[in-house]
Amino acid sequence: MADTRDIETLIELMARLPGLGPRSARRAVLALLKKRDALMAPLAQAMAGVALTAKDCAICGNIGTAELCPICADPARATSEICVVEDVADLWAMERGGVFKGRYHVLGGTLSALDAMGPDELGIPRLARRVADDAIGEVILALNATVDGQTTAHYIADVLADSGAQITSLAQGVPIGGELNYLDDGTIGAALRARKRF
Amino acid sequence: MADTRDIETLIELMARLPGLGPRSARRAVLALLKKRDALMAPLAQAMAGVALTAKDCAICGNIGTAELCPICADPARATSEICVVEDVADLWAMERGGVFKGRYHVLGGTLSALDAMGPDELGIPRLARRVADDAIGEVILALNATVDGQTTAHYIADVLADSGAQITSLAQGVPIGGELNYLDDGTIGAALRARKRF
Repeated sequence: MADTRDIETLIELMARLPGLGPRSARRAVLALLKKRDALMAPLAQAMAGVALTAKDCAICGNIGTAELCPICADPARATSEICVVEDVADLWAMERGGVFKGRYHVLGGTLSALDAMGPDELGIPRLARRVADDAIGEVILALNATVDGQTTAHYIADVLADSGAQITSLAQGVPIGGELNYLDDGTIGAALRARKRF
Repeated sequence: MADTRDIETLIELMARLPGLGPRSARRAVLALLKKRDALMAPLAQAMAGVALTAKDCAICGNIGTAELCPICADPARATSEICVVEDVADLWAMERGGVFKGRYHVLGGTLSALDAMGPDELGIPRLARRVADDAIGEVILALNATVDGQTTAHYIADVLADSGAQITSLAQGVPIGGELNYLDDGTIGAALRARKRF
Protein backbone atom coordinates (compact mmCIF):
# COMPACT_ATOMS: atom_id res chain seq x y z
CA MET A 1 0.00 0.00 0.00
CA ALA A 2 2.30 2.71 -1.34
CA ASP A 3 1.76 6.26 -0.10
CA THR A 4 0.47 5.13 3.27
CA ARG A 5 4.08 4.67 4.29
CA ASP A 6 3.44 6.88 7.32
CA ILE A 7 0.82 4.45 8.57
CA GLU A 8 3.14 1.49 7.90
CA THR A 9 5.91 3.24 9.84
CA LEU A 10 3.53 3.83 12.73
CA ILE A 11 2.55 0.14 12.76
CA GLU A 12 6.22 -0.90 12.74
CA LEU A 13 7.02 1.38 15.68
CA MET A 14 3.98 0.20 17.64
CA ALA A 15 4.99 -3.42 17.03
CA ARG A 16 8.22 -2.76 18.95
CA LEU A 17 6.28 -2.25 22.19
CA PRO A 18 6.30 -5.21 24.58
CA GLY A 19 3.11 -7.27 24.32
CA LEU A 20 2.34 -6.07 20.80
CA GLY A 21 3.28 -7.95 17.64
CA PRO A 22 2.72 -6.98 14.00
CA ARG A 23 -0.93 -8.09 14.06
CA SER A 24 -1.92 -6.41 17.31
CA ALA A 25 0.03 -3.29 16.37
CA ARG A 26 -1.99 -3.11 13.15
CA ARG A 27 -5.19 -3.51 15.16
CA ALA A 28 -4.13 -0.79 17.59
CA VAL A 29 -3.23 1.60 14.76
CA LEU A 30 -6.59 0.95 13.06
CA ALA A 31 -8.36 1.78 16.32
CA LEU A 32 -6.27 4.96 16.52
CA LEU A 33 -7.12 5.86 12.91
CA LYS A 34 -10.81 5.52 13.71
CA LYS A 35 -10.51 7.77 16.78
CA ARG A 36 -8.13 10.34 15.35
CA ASP A 37 -9.40 13.27 17.39
CA ALA A 38 -10.55 11.45 20.52
CA LEU A 39 -7.53 9.21 21.06
CA MET A 40 -4.76 9.47 18.47
CA ALA A 41 -4.00 13.18 18.76
CA PRO A 42 -4.08 13.24 22.61
CA LEU A 43 -1.94 10.10 22.78
CA ALA A 44 0.63 11.53 20.37
CA GLN A 45 0.71 14.74 22.39
CA ALA A 46 1.03 12.95 25.75
CA MET A 47 3.81 10.76 24.37
CA ALA A 48 5.75 13.67 22.90
CA GLY A 49 5.38 15.57 26.17
CA VAL A 50 6.67 12.72 28.29
CA ALA A 51 9.48 11.98 25.83
CA LEU A 52 10.63 15.59 26.23
CA THR A 53 10.23 15.95 29.99
CA ALA A 54 10.95 12.49 31.43
CA LYS A 55 14.22 12.35 33.35
CA ASP A 56 16.08 9.77 35.41
CA CYS A 57 16.19 11.00 39.01
CA ALA A 58 19.73 12.10 39.88
CA ILE A 59 19.51 10.47 43.32
CA CYS A 60 17.61 7.21 42.95
CA GLY A 61 17.28 6.50 39.21
CA ASN A 62 13.45 6.56 39.27
CA ILE A 63 11.79 8.23 36.27
CA GLY A 64 10.11 11.57 36.86
CA THR A 65 9.65 14.87 35.12
CA ALA A 66 12.12 16.92 37.18
CA GLU A 67 15.75 16.72 38.29
CA LEU A 68 14.56 14.85 41.41
CA CYS A 69 11.77 12.30 41.19
CA PRO A 70 8.56 12.94 43.23
CA ILE A 71 9.70 10.46 45.88
CA CYS A 72 13.16 11.97 46.44
CA ALA A 73 11.60 15.47 46.40
CA ASP A 74 8.90 14.55 48.94
CA PRO A 75 9.92 15.81 52.42
CA ALA A 76 7.32 13.51 54.03
CA ARG A 77 9.21 10.36 53.02
CA ALA A 78 11.65 8.90 55.53
CA THR A 79 15.24 9.69 54.54
CA SER A 80 16.76 6.95 56.68
CA GLU A 81 15.52 3.95 54.69
CA ILE A 82 16.53 3.00 51.15
CA CYS A 83 14.72 0.26 49.25
CA VAL A 84 16.87 -1.21 46.47
CA VAL A 85 14.89 -2.41 43.43
CA GLU A 86 15.99 -3.78 40.06
CA ASP A 87 13.74 -1.70 37.88
CA VAL A 88 11.36 1.26 37.77
CA ALA A 89 8.55 -1.28 37.26
CA ASP A 90 9.47 -2.82 40.63
CA LEU A 91 9.46 0.63 42.25
CA TRP A 92 5.97 1.21 40.89
CA ALA A 93 4.89 -2.20 42.23
CA MET A 94 6.31 -1.31 45.68
CA GLU A 95 4.46 2.03 45.60
CA ARG A 96 1.20 0.26 44.71
CA GLY A 97 1.78 -1.86 47.80
CA GLY A 98 1.58 1.42 49.72
CA VAL A 99 3.52 0.18 52.76
CA PHE A 100 7.03 1.53 52.20
CA LYS A 101 7.48 5.21 53.10
CA GLY A 102 11.22 5.67 52.56
CA ARG A 103 13.37 6.38 49.50
CA TYR A 104 14.57 4.12 46.69
CA HIS A 105 17.60 3.12 44.69
CA VAL A 106 16.82 1.80 41.22
CA LEU A 107 19.59 -0.47 39.93
CA GLY A 108 18.35 -0.64 36.36
CA GLY A 109 19.19 -4.34 36.08
CA THR A 110 21.19 -7.05 37.83
CA LEU A 111 24.88 -7.93 37.83
CA SER A 112 25.50 -9.77 34.60
CA ALA A 113 28.80 -10.47 32.87
CA LEU A 114 26.95 -11.36 29.65
CA ASP A 115 25.08 -8.04 29.49
CA ALA A 116 28.17 -6.12 30.70
CA MET A 117 26.29 -4.95 33.79
CA GLY A 118 28.84 -4.32 36.55
CA PRO A 119 28.55 -2.47 39.87
CA ASP A 120 29.13 0.89 38.14
CA GLU A 121 26.30 0.37 35.64
CA LEU A 122 23.95 -0.41 38.54
CA GLY A 123 25.02 2.67 40.49
CA ILE A 124 26.21 0.58 43.45
CA PRO A 125 29.13 2.95 44.35
CA ARG A 126 26.57 5.82 44.29
CA LEU A 127 24.33 3.80 46.62
CA ALA A 128 27.27 3.13 48.98
CA ARG A 129 28.17 6.86 49.10
CA ARG A 130 24.52 7.70 49.79
CA VAL A 131 24.36 5.18 52.64
CA ALA A 132 27.55 6.63 54.18
CA ASP A 133 26.75 10.33 53.63
CA ASP A 134 23.06 10.35 54.59
CA ALA A 135 23.41 8.17 57.73
CA ILE A 136 21.00 5.60 56.31
CA GLY A 137 19.65 3.29 59.01
CA GLU A 138 18.26 0.48 56.87
CA VAL A 139 18.73 -0.76 53.32
CA ILE A 140 15.95 -3.08 52.16
CA LEU A 141 16.98 -5.33 49.29
CA ALA A 142 13.71 -5.79 47.33
CA LEU A 143 15.24 -7.72 44.44
CA ASN A 144 13.49 -10.40 42.48
CA ALA A 145 13.73 -13.92 43.90
CA THR A 146 15.71 -15.07 40.85
CA VAL A 147 19.31 -16.26 40.69
CA ASP A 148 20.47 -12.94 39.18
CA GLY A 149 18.46 -10.90 41.65
CA GLN A 150 19.78 -12.81 44.65
CA THR A 151 23.39 -12.72 43.38
CA THR A 152 23.11 -8.94 43.10
CA ALA A 153 21.53 -8.75 46.55
CA HIS A 154 24.45 -10.68 48.08
CA TYR A 155 26.95 -8.41 46.31
CA ILE A 156 25.24 -5.26 47.60
CA ALA A 157 25.05 -6.72 51.12
CA ASP A 158 28.83 -7.36 50.96
CA VAL A 159 29.56 -3.81 49.76
CA LEU A 160 27.43 -2.30 52.53
CA ALA A 161 28.55 -4.73 55.24
CA ASP A 162 30.73 -2.13 57.02
CA SER A 163 28.44 0.86 56.42
CA GLY A 164 26.65 0.50 59.73
CA ALA A 165 23.25 0.32 57.99
CA GLN A 166 21.04 -2.64 58.70
CA ILE A 167 20.61 -4.75 55.54
CA THR A 168 17.27 -6.51 55.20
CA SER A 169 15.38 -8.28 52.44
CA LEU A 170 11.71 -8.91 51.68
CA ALA A 171 10.15 -11.86 53.53
CA GLN A 172 9.64 -15.02 51.52
CA GLY A 173 6.53 -17.10 52.07
CA VAL A 174 2.99 -17.88 51.01
CA PRO A 175 1.49 -15.05 48.87
CA ILE A 176 -1.76 -13.48 50.14
CA GLY A 177 -4.57 -15.60 48.71
CA GLY A 178 -2.08 -18.33 47.74
CA GLU A 179 -3.05 -22.01 47.95
CA LEU A 180 -0.40 -24.38 49.29
CA ASN A 181 -1.44 -26.95 46.72
CA TYR A 182 -0.28 -24.70 43.87
CA LEU A 183 2.91 -23.36 45.47
CA ASP A 184 6.34 -24.59 44.45
CA ASP A 185 8.42 -26.60 46.93
CA GLY A 186 10.98 -23.82 47.44
CA THR A 187 8.34 -21.32 48.56
CA ILE A 188 6.74 -23.80 50.96
CA GLY A 189 10.18 -24.63 52.41
CA ALA A 190 11.01 -20.92 52.83
CA ALA A 191 7.63 -20.21 54.46
CA LEU A 192 8.10 -23.11 56.87
CA ARG A 193 11.63 -22.06 57.87
CA ALA A 194 10.38 -18.49 58.47
CA ARG A 195 7.27 -19.60 60.40
CA LYS A 196 6.13 -17.35 63.24
CA ARG A 197 3.99 -17.61 66.33
CA PHE A 198 0.29 -17.44 65.45
CA MET B 1 2.94 9.04 42.50
CA ALA B 2 2.08 12.75 42.39
CA ASP B 3 3.86 14.91 39.82
CA THR B 4 4.24 12.09 37.33
CA ARG B 5 0.67 12.81 36.24
CA ASP B 6 1.89 13.07 32.63
CA ILE B 7 3.12 9.50 32.77
CA GLU B 8 -0.15 8.36 34.39
CA THR B 9 -2.12 10.11 31.63
CA LEU B 10 0.01 8.40 28.99
CA ILE B 11 -0.65 4.99 30.60
CA GLU B 12 -4.40 5.67 30.69
CA LEU B 13 -4.46 6.65 27.02
CA MET B 14 -2.39 3.60 26.02
CA ALA B 15 -4.76 1.35 28.00
CA ARG B 16 -7.58 2.43 25.67
CA LEU B 17 -5.93 0.69 22.71
CA PRO B 18 -7.42 -2.68 21.78
CA GLY B 19 -5.38 -5.57 23.17
CA LEU B 20 -3.84 -3.45 25.93
CA GLY B 21 -5.17 -3.28 29.49
CA PRO B 22 -3.91 -1.21 32.43
CA ARG B 23 -1.07 -3.65 33.19
CA SER B 24 0.20 -4.08 29.64
CA ALA B 25 -0.16 -0.34 29.01
CA ARG B 26 2.06 0.29 32.04
CA ARG B 27 4.58 -2.20 30.69
CA ALA B 28 4.52 -0.56 27.26
CA VAL B 29 4.99 2.92 28.73
CA LEU B 30 7.92 1.68 30.86
CA ALA B 31 9.53 0.27 27.72
CA LEU B 32 8.97 3.63 26.03
CA LEU B 33 10.46 5.49 29.01
CA LYS B 34 13.57 3.34 28.77
CA LYS B 35 13.96 4.01 25.03
CA ARG B 36 13.02 7.68 25.04
CA ASP B 37 15.18 8.67 22.08
CA ALA B 38 15.16 5.42 20.13
CA LEU B 39 11.44 4.66 20.29
CA MET B 40 9.29 7.10 22.26
CA ALA B 41 10.14 10.30 20.37
CA PRO B 42 9.87 8.71 16.88
CA LEU B 43 6.61 6.98 17.83
CA ALA B 44 5.10 10.22 19.15
CA GLN B 45 6.18 12.01 15.99
CA ALA B 46 4.83 9.29 13.66
CA MET B 47 1.53 9.25 15.55
CA ALA B 48 1.14 13.04 15.48
CA GLY B 49 1.95 13.06 11.77
CA VAL B 50 -0.60 10.39 10.91
CA ALA B 51 -3.23 12.00 13.18
CA LEU B 52 -2.79 15.22 11.20
CA THR B 53 -2.65 13.79 7.69
CA ALA B 54 -4.88 10.71 7.76
CA LYS B 55 -8.07 11.16 5.75
CA ASP B 56 -11.02 8.98 4.78
CA CYS B 57 -10.95 8.54 1.00
CA ALA B 58 -13.79 10.54 -0.59
CA ILE B 59 -14.58 7.69 -2.99
CA CYS B 60 -14.16 4.40 -1.14
CA GLY B 61 -13.83 5.25 2.58
CA ASN B 62 -10.34 3.69 2.89
CA ILE B 63 -7.88 5.60 5.08
CA GLY B 64 -5.03 7.36 3.31
CA THR B 65 -3.05 10.55 3.56
CA ALA B 66 -4.63 12.40 0.62
CA GLU B 67 -8.12 13.25 -0.65
CA LEU B 68 -8.10 9.96 -2.58
CA CYS B 69 -6.60 6.81 -1.05
CA PRO B 70 -3.64 5.17 -2.84
CA ILE B 71 -5.93 2.53 -4.32
CA CYS B 72 -8.49 4.97 -5.79
CA ALA B 73 -5.63 7.14 -7.06
CA ASP B 74 -3.82 4.23 -8.72
CA PRO B 75 -4.52 4.22 -12.49
CA ALA B 76 -3.27 0.62 -12.75
CA ARG B 77 -6.20 -0.74 -10.69
CA ALA B 78 -9.26 -1.95 -12.62
CA THR B 79 -12.07 0.58 -12.41
CA SER B 80 -14.82 -1.89 -13.35
CA GLU B 81 -14.74 -3.99 -10.16
CA ILE B 82 -15.71 -2.88 -6.68
CA CYS B 83 -15.03 -5.05 -3.65
CA VAL B 84 -17.34 -4.18 -0.73
CA VAL B 85 -15.76 -4.70 2.71
CA GLU B 86 -17.00 -3.96 6.21
CA ASP B 87 -13.91 -2.29 7.53
CA VAL B 88 -10.52 -0.85 6.65
CA ALA B 89 -9.00 -3.87 8.43
CA ASP B 90 -10.78 -6.13 5.93
CA LEU B 91 -9.49 -4.01 3.04
CA TRP B 92 -5.94 -4.42 4.38
CA ALA B 93 -6.53 -8.19 4.68
CA MET B 94 -7.75 -8.33 1.05
CA GLU B 95 -4.69 -6.35 -0.07
CA ARG B 96 -2.39 -8.76 1.78
CA GLY B 97 -4.10 -11.53 -0.20
CA GLY B 98 -2.71 -9.74 -3.27
CA VAL B 99 -5.27 -11.21 -5.70
CA PHE B 100 -7.84 -8.43 -6.10
CA LYS B 101 -6.77 -5.64 -8.47
CA GLY B 102 -9.94 -3.49 -8.54
CA ARG B 103 -11.30 -0.74 -6.28
CA TYR B 104 -13.05 -0.91 -2.91
CA HIS B 105 -16.05 0.36 -1.01
CA VAL B 106 -15.55 0.41 2.77
CA LEU B 107 -18.89 0.28 4.59
CA GLY B 108 -17.50 1.10 8.02
CA GLY B 109 -19.80 -1.41 9.72
CA THR B 110 -22.87 -3.52 9.06
CA LEU B 111 -26.56 -2.71 9.07
CA SER B 112 -27.61 -2.60 12.70
CA ALA B 113 -30.73 -1.09 14.24
CA LEU B 114 -29.12 -1.22 17.69
CA ASP B 115 -26.04 0.75 16.64
CA ALA B 116 -28.15 3.09 14.46
CA MET B 117 -26.25 1.97 11.36
CA GLY B 118 -28.54 2.37 8.35
CA PRO B 119 -27.81 2.37 4.60
CA ASP B 120 -26.80 6.06 4.71
CA GLU B 121 -24.23 5.51 7.47
CA LEU B 122 -22.69 2.69 5.39
CA GLY B 123 -22.56 4.83 2.24
CA ILE B 124 -24.77 2.38 0.32
CA PRO B 125 -26.51 5.14 -1.76
CA ARG B 126 -23.00 6.42 -2.63
CA LEU B 127 -22.02 2.89 -3.69
CA ALA B 128 -25.16 2.59 -5.84
CA ARG B 129 -24.43 5.92 -7.57
CA ARG B 130 -20.86 4.82 -8.18
CA VAL B 131 -22.01 1.51 -9.70
CA ALA B 132 -24.44 3.38 -12.00
CA ASP B 133 -22.13 6.26 -12.96
CA ASP B 134 -18.88 4.35 -13.51
CA ALA B 135 -20.39 1.43 -15.44
CA ILE B 136 -19.15 -1.07 -12.87
CA GLY B 137 -19.15 -4.62 -14.23
CA GLU B 138 -18.86 -6.58 -10.97
CA VAL B 139 -19.48 -5.90 -7.30
CA ILE B 140 -17.79 -8.45 -5.02
CA LEU B 141 -19.40 -8.64 -1.58
CA ALA B 142 -16.45 -9.54 0.70
CA LEU B 143 -18.38 -9.27 3.96
CA ASN B 144 -17.73 -11.37 7.02
CA ALA B 145 -19.54 -14.70 7.17
CA THR B 146 -21.52 -13.53 10.21
CA VAL B 147 -25.27 -12.94 10.51
CA ASP B 148 -24.80 -9.15 10.37
CA GLY B 149 -22.35 -9.35 7.49
CA GLN B 150 -24.62 -11.60 5.44
CA THR B 151 -27.74 -9.50 6.19
CA THR B 152 -25.89 -6.45 4.92
CA ALA B 153 -24.70 -8.39 1.86
CA HIS B 154 -28.29 -9.37 1.00
CA TYR B 155 -29.44 -5.77 1.42
CA ILE B 156 -26.71 -4.46 -0.90
CA ALA B 157 -27.47 -7.19 -3.46
CA ASP B 158 -31.13 -6.08 -3.41
CA VAL B 159 -30.23 -2.40 -3.87
CA LEU B 160 -27.91 -3.21 -6.79
CA ALA B 161 -30.20 -5.85 -8.36
CA ASP B 162 -31.23 -3.59 -11.26
CA SER B 163 -27.88 -1.87 -11.72
CA GLY B 164 -26.70 -4.29 -14.39
CA ALA B 165 -23.54 -5.10 -12.42
CA GLN B 166 -22.84 -8.71 -11.61
CA ILE B 167 -23.04 -9.27 -7.83
CA THR B 168 -20.69 -11.95 -6.47
CA SER B 169 -19.48 -13.01 -3.04
CA LEU B 170 -16.35 -14.73 -1.74
CA ALA B 171 -16.32 -18.53 -2.02
CA GLN B 172 -16.95 -20.44 1.19
CA GLY B 173 -15.06 -23.65 1.84
CA VAL B 174 -12.07 -25.28 3.49
CA PRO B 175 -9.34 -22.72 4.35
CA ILE B 176 -5.88 -23.31 2.85
CA GLY B 177 -4.06 -25.57 5.31
CA GLY B 178 -7.33 -26.36 7.11
CA GLU B 179 -7.98 -29.80 8.56
CA LEU B 180 -11.48 -31.23 8.10
CA ASN B 181 -11.36 -32.63 11.61
CA TYR B 182 -11.22 -29.14 13.10
CA LEU B 183 -13.72 -27.41 10.79
CA ASP B 184 -17.24 -26.58 11.91
CA ASP B 185 -20.17 -28.40 10.31
CA GLY B 186 -21.40 -25.32 8.43
CA THR B 187 -18.10 -24.85 6.61
CA ILE B 188 -17.88 -28.53 5.65
CA GLY B 189 -21.47 -28.39 4.35
CA ALA B 190 -20.76 -25.25 2.34
CA ALA B 191 -17.56 -26.71 0.91
CA LEU B 192 -19.39 -29.91 -0.07
CA ARG B 193 -22.26 -28.03 -1.78
CA ALA B 194 -19.74 -25.91 -3.70
CA ARG B 195 -17.55 -28.90 -4.65
CA LYS B 196 -15.87 -28.72 -8.02
CA ARG B 197 -14.34 -31.15 -10.53
CA PHE B 198 -10.81 -32.14 -9.44
